Amino acid sequence: MKLIFIGDEMHETKIIVSNKIKLKNPTMIVGLPGIGNVGRIAVRYMIEQLKAKKFAELYSPYFVPVIIVDEKSVARTIKNEFYYYKSKEKDFIFLTGDSQSMTPYGHYEINGMIINFAKSMGVNEIITIGGFNSESIDEKPKVIGVVNNEKLIKKYQNCGMEFSGNKIISTIVGSTGLLIGMANSFKIAGLSIIVGTPGFPTIIADPKAAEAALSVLMKVTNLKVNMKEIDQSVKIMKDSINKTEELQKKIIEDMKEDKNTNQYIG
Amino acid sequence: MKLIFIGDEMHETKIIVSNKIKLKNPTMIVGLPGIGNVGRIAVRYMIEQLKAKKFAELYSPYFVPVIIVDEKSVARTIKNEFYYYKSKEKDFIFLTGDSQSMTPYGHYEINGMIINFAKSMGVNEIITIGGFNSESIDEKPKVIGVVNNEKLIKKYQNCGMEFSGNKIISTIVGSTGLLIGMANSFKIAGLSIIVGTPGFPTIIADPKAAEAALSVLMKVTNLKVNMKEIDQSVKIMKDSINKTEELQKKIIEDMKEDKNTNQYIG
Amino acid sequence: MKLIFIGDEMHETKIIVSNKIKLKNPTMIVGLPGIGNVGRIAVRYMIEQLKAKKFAELYSPYFVPVIIVDEKSVARTIKNEFYYYKSKEKDFIFLTGDSQSMTPYGHYEINGMIINFAKSMGVNEIITIGGFNSESIDEKPKVIGVVNNEKLIKKYQNCGMEFSGNKIISTIVGSTGLLIGMANSFKIAGLSIIVGTPGFPTIIADPKAAEAALSVLMKVTNLKVNMKEIDQSVKIMKDSINKTEELQKKIIEDMKEDKNTNQYIG
Amino acid sequence: MKLIFIGDEMHETKIIVSNKIKLKNPTMIVGLPGIGNVGRIAVRYMIEQLKAKKFAELYSPYFVPVIIVDEKSVARTIKNEFYYYKSKEKDFIFLTGDSQSMTPYGHYEINGMIINFAKSMGVNEIITIGGFNSESIDEKPKVIGVVNNEKLIKKYQNCGMEFSGNKIISTIVGSTGLLIGMANSFKIAGLSIIVGTPGFPTIIADPKAAEAALSVLMKVTNLKVNMKEIDQSVKIMKDSINKTEELQKKIIEDMKEDKNTNQYIG
Repeated sequence: MKLIFIGDEMHETKIIVSNKIKLKNPTMIVGLPGIGNVGRIAVRYMIEQLKAKKFAELYSPYFVPVIIVDEKSVARTIKNEFYYYKSKEKDFIFLTGDSQSMTPYGHYEINGMIINFAKSMGVNEIITIGGFNSESIDEKPKVIGVVNNEKLIKKYQNCGMEFSGNKIISTIVGSTGLLIGMANSFKIAGLSIIVGTPGFPTIIADPKAAEAALSVLMKVTNLKVNMKEIDQSVKIMKDSINKTEELQKKIIEDMKEDKNTNQYIG
Repeated sequence: MKLIFIGDEMHETKIIVSNKIKLKNPTMIVGLPGIGNVGRIAVRYMIEQLKAKKFAELYSPYFVPVIIVDEKSVARTIKNEFYYYKSKEKDFIFLTGDSQSMTPYGHYEINGMIINFAKSMGVNEIITIGGFNSESIDEKPKVIGVVNNEKLIKKYQNCGMEFSGNKIISTIVGSTGLLIGMANSFKIAGLSIIVGTPGFPTIIADPKAAEAALSVLMKVTNLKVNMKEIDQSVKIMKDSINKTEELQKKIIEDMKEDKNTNQYIG
Repeated sequence: MKLIFIGDEMHETKIIVSNKIKLKNPTMIVGLPGIGNVGRIAVRYMIEQLKAKKFAELYSPYFVPVIIVDEKSVARTIKNEFYYYKSKEKDFIFLTGDSQSMTPYGHYEINGMIINFAKSMGVNEIITIGGFNSESIDEKPKVIGVVNNEKLIKKYQNCGMEFSGNKIISTIVGSTGLLIGMANSFKIAGLSIIVGTPGFPTIIADPKAAEAALSVLMKVTNLKVNMKEIDQSVKIMKDSINKTEELQKKIIEDMKEDKNTNQYIG
Repeated sequence: MKLIFIGDEMHETKIIVSNKIKLKNPTMIVGLPGIGNVGRIAVRYMIEQLKAKKFAELYSPYFVPVIIVDEKSVARTIKNEFYYYKSKEKDFIFLTGDSQSMTPYGHYEINGMIINFAKSMGVNEIITIGGFNSESIDEKPKVIGVVNNEKLIKKYQNCGMEFSGNKIISTIVGSTGLLIGMANSFKIAGLSIIVGTPGFPTIIADPKAAEAALSVLMKVTNLKVNMKEIDQSVKIMKDSINKTEELQKKIIEDMKEDKNTNQYIG
């Protein structure tokens, strides 16, 4: 197993490919930490259900400078992970992970690296999943669609999203937004599926919103996953998400509250 | 349509030229977001009225890491835009856009890129337009002129600006300032037209101040535009400016309030 | 005495080697500033007792931009220091110093440099020592062990640490964490010894926690040091740690309180 | 007049030499903005009295991103300036300017550039002048000396400074500190003259402290300047310092108060 580094000397963010695979016409599906962890849960659940395989990892100095300890007392650095899944018609890449960038500059660097990597893998469609804070707690969460090219609306319009312009969502922050924005320069089709959730601080992992996202995602991609295990799966994820997020939050607060580096665990 | 990248490996800010044009003795006129959006409105209005054509775009990792969604549910990354307009006597470049840098370092990088690009296009005069917070709400807004070379005052002195030293304006922040300051090292003449406006937070887009700026700008450049449509035009711009600015503000607040990256829409 | 620079043009953090030594199978032991200064005191005491010799220094622009004045009115820049100690069986490197990085990015850069340097010295085991805020003030402080590879638990399990998973420690910040996390990619075994201490702000230098760390460290490494002088030694260190930390804290506060650079001593 | 750039692609901070001079055994004397502006006033006064000539300027993206407007409505970017003065025995370089770095990293970059430049000019002694907040308002301000090498104390000990260890001054921030700290690696002798002043916020330009610094500086360097005009000179400087500092402070506050870049004058 040889490690391959994508990136150049200018960029400290690195993608390490552990398995050099060839993919057929791949779509990349992205779910990273965010409001209600909608995308992260949805994508993690897809990976579990489809038994997708990990083939690359992304490390960045723009992540929070911590290691995460597991229940066996084993620690590892913060990372994002790329998985692949091959189907008859076409292949898929799933991207999920512990964290997004801590700084605006880092968002541009990390997502620039991801989009370059996607292009090098032959990706021609990127679908990102995120949440937005919705005050109304509907039985069925509202799902908003945003594309990076007007022509795509027709393609996605019968998949359960509202393409209602910018009244509800007028900007999208971080990977969920930048990836489809940047994809445009690479002639990669881009779709963001943004689901309403009471989100942070009330709900750290919203299974209902994730389910709504998955329902749309299945229509868009023709992927099928059994939804029966989502509640159980979210219950397990929630605990680990909660722990990491609370600590990440505490660290950032500590850094801002003038408790200098000397006060770090360390 | 070939893309040309201006910039080097050290600089992440990039100017992408979509149309390789040759300009005659060009003056660059700059109106970017700022107090009362005076420059942004004035330059955008000029572009509309003169039907100036876009020939280049600037992207930077020092912009806020978001995409902007339009009324058709189509999103794009944050950018600045260069337009050109050819007149009999001489040509013009207009620079406007969504945002200025989020960080002090970014201001130096972005404006350094712009001034290098201007030089490469043969620009020999840069005119920036901005606003300052004025408490007195005059019928006719006060317009202050600042130059980067004492000899220029004579040239501009009968165009409706006060060259009253540093009593009212003693420093100018961001592109409006740095561009004329940096222009000096490149032997490019520089003028800032700074217009009094009640500005932020009361007035997000001040048409009266923009009109005053345009009135001066027409005298300085001999360009003529019909002022009848300015109120209507500002009304349209206001809505989109308002939405973007409020959200940009919210994002920055969120980032500072220790709501870590996990709380982003994303 | 020739200076050797480790590092490349991209990295501003530099390790300057003043004594080119060869080490046999070395273990690196790291104790940098942190909660209760547990690691810093423990490692400094080991260096004193074993009469370990300095052979390299690390400088970084991510340290606080100050010089430290000593009791003779002589000042020096902030740094980390590498010492070595040769024993019959194997050799040791000790790393300690004034400060950790002021920024998250800096943590990644500095620790990336350290791990590369460790690899170049042939290090195959890294042991970091840190503290965690413990509310219960036990007679015998709790010592938690965290490893970077599950197989290591067996090796370390009878040395006086609890390998109790992530209930108490679920993330480790800064060098104490990142070094063992990063070590994994270099096939270097990693152990963090984290000791409970009332820590900051109550106790700036906790001798009891340092003693507990040393007791575990001696079992892990087979090194033996006389513990009789620890109280006296901590008393001396405390004074200098206190002064530096208070001032570092003040500086960082000043920088954040919008007292701009003009208000620096300077 | 040819411009020469000192610096490399990695460093954005640049020193532009307008006059290629050769200096005999030069001492560099540094007075940049800081508490009570002690160093800035003292060095500026020396430059005026000795009619020292400017030969180089330093520009940095780590300065505040503004231009400064003068009483003639002419603006220029923020900079530091190098002057030289030739005397029979030896020559002198004076360094003063508008600002120090806005960020810790910038302090390391800017002062690293300065020390490299000093070395290239043959400088073998650096004297920095700064202030410290002193509560006691003495008739004669306290002057503390700090050196970068113990052997230097003997040389400087009868010049009117106290070499009283680290009881009053235990760290020195910014250029005043870093320059003498860094000088040590270049085998350049370093002295900081730190004068007690009620300083910020009460006194923005303390003539009494500057006079005390000058009195020591004359003994150290054998330079002689007439002190009669200092009060008048400070009066003039005060006005311009005040204006710039207030605005710099306001800008930094604005940036921190989540008023995003859109609210800049610009």
